[in-house]
Amino acid sequence: MPSNYRNFRKNVPWLILFLEAVFIILFYFLFSDDSASRSSISYAAFQDVNHMVIFGFGFSLMFLRRYGFSSTGFNLLIIVLGVQCSILIESSLVVLLHRENEGGLKRITKAVVSMTAVVISTGAVLGKTNPVQLILMTIVEIIVFHMSRWINNTFLQVLYMMHVHLFGAYFGLAVSSRFSEPSPRSEKNASTLKSDLLSMLGTLFLWVFWPSFNSVLAANKRKAIYNTYFALAVSAVTAFVSSVLTTKDGKFRMAHIRSAVLAGGVAVGYAAHSIEYPWIAMILGLLASVITILGSYCLQQCLNPALKVHDSSGVHFTFGLPGVLGALAQVVLFVIKNWTNLPSLGYLVTIHVGAFCLTISVALITGFITGLILNLKLFKTIPVSKYFEDQFYWEFPHLAVGF
Amino acid sequence: MPSNYRNFRKNVPWLILFLEAVFIILFYFLFSDDSASRSSISYAAFQDVNHMVIFGFGFSLMFLRRYGFSSTGFNLLIIVLGVQCSILIESSLVVLLHRENEGGLKRITKAVVSMTAVVISTGAVLGKTNPVQLILMTIVEIIVFHMSRWINNTFLQVLYMMHVHLFGAYFGLAVSSRFSEPSPRSEKNASTLKSDLLSMLGTLFLWVFWPSFNSVLAANKRKAIYNTYFALAVSAVTAFVSSVLTTKDGKFRMAHIRSAVLAGGVAVGYAAHSIEYPWIAMILGLLASVITILGSYCLQQCLNPALKVHDSSGVHFTFGLPGVLGALAQVVLFVIKNWTNLPSLGYLVTIHVGAFCLTISVALITGFITGLILNLKLFKTIPVSKYFEDQFYWEFPHLAVGF
Amino acid sequence: MPSNYRNFRKNVPWLILFLEAVFIILFYFLFSDDSASRSSISYAAFQDVNHMVIFGFGFSLMFLRRYGFSSTGFNLLIIVLGVQCSILIESSLVVLLHRENEGGLKRITKAVVSMTAVVISTGAVLGKTNPVQLILMTIVEIIVFHMSRWINNTFLQVLYMMHVHLFGAYFGLAVSSRFSEPSPRSEKNASTLKSDLLSMLGTLFLWVFWPSFNSVLAANKRKAIYNTYFALAVSAVTAFVSSVLTTKDGKFRMAHIRSAVLAGGVAVGYAAHSIEYPWIAMILGLLASVITILGSYCLQQCLNPALKVHDSSGVHFTFGLPGVLGALAQVVLFVIKNWTNLPSLGYLVTIHVGAFCLTISVALITGFITGLILNLKLFKTIPVSKYFEDQFYWEFPHLAVGF
Repeated sequence: MPSNYRNFRKNVPWLILFLEAVFIILFYFLFSDDSASRSSISYAAFQDVNHMVIFGFGFSLMFLRRYGFSSTGFNLLIIVLGVQCSILIESSLVVLLHRENEGGLKRITKAVVSMTAVVISTGAVLGKTNPVQLILMTIVEIIVFHMSRWINNTFLQVLYMMHVHLFGAYFGLAVSSRFSEPSPRSEKNASTLKSDLLSMLGTLFLWVFWPSFNSVLAANKRKAIYNTYFALAVSAVTAFVSSVLTTKDGKFRMAHIRSAVLAGGVAVGYAAHSIEYPWIAMILGLLASVITILGSYCLQQCLNPALKVHDSSGVHFTFGLPGVLGALAQVVLFVIKNWTNLPSLGYLVTIHVGAFCLTISVALITGFITGLILNLKLFKTIPVSKYFEDQFYWEFPHLAVGF
Repeated sequence: MPSNYRNFRKNVPWLILFLEAVFIILFYFLFSDDSASRSSISYAAFQDVNHMVIFGFGFSLMFLRRYGFSSTGFNLLIIVLGVQCSILIESSLVVLLHRENEGGLKRITKAVVSMTAVVISTGAVLGKTNPVQLILMTIVEIIVFHMSRWINNTFLQVLYMMHVHLFGAYFGLAVSSRFSEPSPRSEKNASTLKSDLLSMLGTLFLWVFWPSFNSVLAANKRKAIYNTYFALAVSAVTAFVSSVLTTKDGKFRMAHIRSAVLAGGVAVGYAAHSIEYPWIAMILGLLASVITILGSYCLQQCLNPALKVHDSSGVHFTFGLPGVLGALAQVVLFVIKNWTNLPSLGYLVTIHVGAFCLTISVALITGFITGLILNLKLFKTIPVSKYFEDQFYWEFPHLAVGF
Repeated sequence: MPSNYRNFRKNVPWLILFLEAVFIILFYFLFSDDSASRSSISYAAFQDVNHMVIFGFGFSLMFLRRYGFSSTGFNLLIIVLGVQCSILIESSLVVLLHRENEGGLKRITKAVVSMTAVVISTGAVLGKTNPVQLILMTIVEIIVFHMSRWINNTFLQVLYMMHVHLFGAYFGLAVSSRFSEPSPRSEKNASTLKSDLLSMLGTLFLWVFWPSFNSVLAANKRKAIYNTYFALAVSAVTAFVSSVLTTKDGKFRMAHIRSAVLAGGVAVGYAAHSIEYPWIAMILGLLASVITILGSYCLQQCLNPALKVHDSSGVHFTFGLPGVLGALAQVVLFVIKNWTNLPSLGYLVTIHVGAFCLTISVALITGFITGLILNLKLFKTIPVSKYFEDQFYWEFPHLAVGF
């Protein structure tokens, strides 16, 4: 263990404890749940989203051969910290802007949904950041995400939260551009059969709960649910097809399946509640899945080496590209629906495209800056040789057998 | 890799893409969800069933040592294809027979429940079929299943869907009779400790969600739930007892536990909503579990070798025999309840027994024919030496360690 | 295999079958679900608790390297037996004391919640008891637990069930004091990477479903849910902090994380429905987590060796100490809330403290006696060399590879 890493011990616990103390004090001042404002969210819906984020993401990120403990453990850590932070930000907005108070459960649910952005971002630097860096990144990102949402809300009157995948993917990508690539000969960022299976388990959880995620804050829950289901179904089918078409010997590749089965859910997120007919959602699911697998092929072969970006768990093509597709599809569907009313159409399209561009730009710029900050010597950055290594953070009294 | 298998690549993706395109086009014509017809199904109930089928079956079929990727992956693939197909069949029946339109969520739920039949059938040929064969089998079986249900509905006025296990088990069995047995010395169709544990994980999911499954389409949900729970509880207890009594040295066998804990849920499926007292469900659970373990003993020793049937995951005794018991028990309970009203009793018993016989005969005959078709050279049948082998379908960049 | 163990085969199955027959007969006489008494419990809430107990505990106890089958299998066995037993006890109390009849689902839910006590107790003797001993312990403990609840109800008018963790932990601890310690050189009670990961999976399930557990029988569900969530969130954060502070080199220890993330949920269980502000729950979560990790350090170093208690899965610090904290916190909160009304305050505090002391004393005394009984030669106690060994109970046809 490098000697300067020993100091790590001094940083982490006190930083976290201090943060937690600040959070508790702020909760004292900011959070009050008056029973009058009945939350419109059922406990089951909240539970689904909670389950999906903690368990689904925790396990779907577990594909690295020596990074299982950190993937699940740190995922839990940043989610619980981020949810508290997110609730505090929302609550201060309520106080500052005299907004209406929402029920306690609804506020937690919104915070968990927002945290998806951070979880996706951490996927891009999976295995390269120590907990101090992760926590800092969580706090910065959740603040910036709320800022970007607030700007969208206030100046563009765009209300939906579904920019969350887009924001998370591009923020993470920008951060990861500041982390050096692992040695190409390294076998540590490969997966084993076992880690792939547990990761598939997590992905199936995400798949099953994605309709809950897309519907939890939607106006027309029923529509959002079945549109998401159909989009996911078609993208699962397409994932298998595209995987066979893009690999040698026509075999399936688990990494393809894992990222492309979810693509439909991401893409349909923007418009799930307003799509009239499931066949539209299905076509969207098909396109999203194709884009994900083509994207994974092109990005890993061409773009990433050129830009020197190493995206550990492929968030760019898993969440970024389908998110872009979804945002564009929403605009197209909007145009088709309202094209008789030309005068206001241009204005509204501009607003949607504006919100989209704003989200991506804010994500890229702040992500880049965050990446620079995280690489300051101050944060005891990890040597490349220690990337993807549970043993760097966890006690291993385990006998060196099996796994 | 055998050279004729290379052509496999040409078949799978285009077949699936073509199917998916047909499905999307048919959805365009057939599926409309008018909000007026409120679905009587809650999202939570649908979610439970969805979760159970995708996750529970996916993982409970994972007991083979080298077939984990295919078990979960192909399970997802056939479910999403089958659900779309099943919805289309139901929707065309609605259009053709001028039936009442049901809500979108209810239609998906019914499709998922129907798909259980297919998932059970695939268990019987687990590890012996390539994806093309699986997809063909899925489409044929789901069509035949709906046909059989339609005959039951129209001519016998028998409405329930719970023949689903029975149909699935005997269809699968008939199909598997056309596939050759693996070499007895082969170790590939054995399980490892790890695969057994992950399979137990899947089985516990099935166990926990079985009350949801039995109640989701039932008239009296409350009764269906607690009767199923009690039947499952007693069959779990009996599974342990019977396992000790039938093994050498009085040890437990994981394969016994896995199949027998679910027996009560299968058996009680037919009558769960109408059983008055839980003790009846409990006795049914006890009998089902005993029959499953005795069945597993007898079938594997005597019947299967004689008939040259190799039932990979034991669907005959896991779902078939408890299904038969459940169907008979339903008739017996029916007779006891209505035996004062002798004239109509005979007629009604005939109808129930008729529906039962019809379901099994249709399953066996069509299953046998499907098995014949699947073994045509056209479908690039897999050589016996490649049975139970993930590596035949999946890229393995993994280092050859552990697992 | 020791020759006297062969007789084990004669005991287990007939004992269990006899028990099951008695249960079915008693169900015939005692259990009637009249539809008039509508259960106030939703199926989703029951399902969450059921899922958590079967799956969460089953897998979180799976950390021992060679005891995975038994951990999940026996967990299922004792839960289904115990739930039936618990329902029968409640039902006889209804008949004997002419209490109001509750709906079937509510009765099962209460039984599952009560069974948590037994599951926690079995954690203390994990790997040291054979199934006969486990079943006997289950029956005795569930009877004693109901007795203790009935005394609390009748004489102290204390109605809540949340003494369940406290009772379970101290009963288990007292039982475990009668079982000899494993040899310190033994590596069988260590964990592997894989067993730790599956155990983490179970723990995440418990973490996610804990709000359901604390709210399922609470009067003010909404409050119970979000207070539990915040307590769990803070205790997860604190778990990471404390783990770093108490290990060498400032690394995380999985065993710490596993027990301390749940501490907040246990501690807040008593008062979750009545805490006004989340910051109180958060402070409770922080304290509980600290106490758990300090407790784990002190107990394992000092107290346990002195008392010769070997607590296999650390139930004392995972459930016992946070339970004590929670009970005390409830009294303190109660005093703060009602301190203007001094006359009745003293009386009420006495009652709460009395219920707390009574629960612990009953648990310790009956646990100790149970421990003595379980160690009678009659029950074929297991030699220390066979502790923590799946192979003692399960058939292992598995090839000796991997794992």
